[in-house]
Amino acid sequence: MSTPAEVRAAIRRGELDGPTAALAPGFSQANLVVLPEADAFDFLRFCVANPRPCPVLEVLEPGSVEPVATAPGADLRVDLPRYRVFRRGELVDEPDRVEWREDLVAFLIGCSFTFERALLAAGLPVRHIEQGVNVPMYRTSVPCRPAGRFSGPLVVSMRPMTPDQAKRAAEITSRFSSAHGAPLHVGDPSALGIAALDAPEYGDAVELRDGEVPVFWACGVTPQAVAAASRPELMITHAPGHMFVTDLAE
Amino acid sequence: MSTPAEVRAAIRRGELDGPTAALAPGFSQANLVVLPEADAFDFLRFCVANPRPCPVLEVLEPGSVEPVATAPGADLRVDLPRYRVFRRGELVDEPDRVEWREDLVAFLIGCSFTFERALLAAGLPVRHIEQGVNVPMYRTSVPCRPAGRFSGPLVVSMRPMTPDQAKRAAEITSRFSSAHGAPLHVGDPSALGIAALDAPEYGDAVELRDGEVPVFWACGVTPQAVAAASRPELMITHAPGHMFVTDLAE
Repeated sequence: MSTPAEVRAAIRRGELDGPTAALAPGFSQANLVVLPEADAFDFLRFCVANPRPCPVLEVLEPGSVEPVATAPGADLRVDLPRYRVFRRGELVDEPDRVEWREDLVAFLIGCSFTFERALLAAGLPVRHIEQGVNVPMYRTSVPCRPAGRFSGPLVVSMRPMTPDQAKRAAEITSRFSSAHGAPLHVGDPSALGIAALDAPEYGDAVELRDGEVPVFWACGVTPQAVAAASRPELMITHAPGHMFVTDLAE
Repeated sequence: MSTPAEVRAAIRRGELDGPTAALAPGFSQANLVVLPEADAFDFLRFCVANPRPCPVLEVLEPGSVEPVATAPGADLRVDLPRYRVFRRGELVDEPDRVEWREDLVAFLIGCSFTFERALLAAGLPVRHIEQGVNVPMYRTSVPCRPAGRFSGPLVVSMRPMTPDQAKRAAEITSRFSSAHGAPLHVGDPSALGIAALDAPEYGDAVELRDGEVPVFWACGVTPQAVAAASRPELMITHAPGHMFVTDLAE
């Protein structure tokens, strides 16, 4: 089960319901954000103003559930393992499939899982894959650039590495500009306003070993923190770590 | 007169009314597109779907004329040397300043003038600067990816070079991803559906010398060709070659 279509089919049948890291190696994974059309222009401006956390892979036509550019034939209502539904910024449901409306616009945003194959191929550790847990993600004190009704804090993902490994990881990920690119910060969590590495706001904590430092990348869960701050009527997203697997080569 | 603010002030005073190539070296220049808010989401989706011709530098708040991210204090109504006004796709006016409405949204899009300093610094020819004319631009037979109401042909700019120079230019411009990046095509105009190099649809023809081939880059005049094809109620743009000079480093 290594092609994107096979992964999506297994998810659709309910056979796969966990985080998608390491699935369909070689292909781009994506964050999902769905908003009513009335909020869509403001949100797309927000993405354009914040390309590190929100690199746009595709914006669907209003009402459409098929991402014709990145995964023709797929169905965004059923092809992700888990979703989150926010009403006025409150998380109200975490279903394994979602209903659609004619006025909903779906956005697919690049994901750091996309570059993890390249990290592993270079002999670099990806601790959440080693430990079989979800990647740790933290809400920072760094504000995004606001656009229209949307504002809120940057969210980052974290992978522990030695300083030398972090340098190599920065070189490798800098070419993945549609998957958050190079790390935003290496070393000091408090520089990002992160109080406790063992208590991520999203995903699971992972082990930081002797000689390792935390390496932080911008994260596509940022819109979920923005929903809490900006309280749009409705926002549907993927559950953190439970991504949409596209047909795009990494 | 080498800073962006000085160039914009001279334009505003009416002392500068020609193409802006080679002005304010080291700073990014921008294409302008202004549309009613009702068309803004479709157009921004068009840009995201066509990042080579339409790399977005900034989207202003509806009604705003000050690009706070790329040139704080500037005024998009008066700081460009020449504008074009399209109504239902027809060019109806080419004024040196424009009126604004509360529902207008301005988009600033990267421009290939931004990388010309780097080409000159590498000893490569930029023929339209040598000849003191506007850069030649051509409407191609290559369709853009449509989005909502917007569709139409790709427009390209052209600079003549030897094949070796073209290779070096490709290396240099590939890092200017917000200014159209590397050439889309080198050599055969008919591959892009261009019938006559000496009759560009926009700007001026330039000399092609012995041993030189045409080198084509995606161009931010593309939205003007898209206006003709998609016929929005109103679109205001810069006049080709008469760009907005931003404060962004190149």
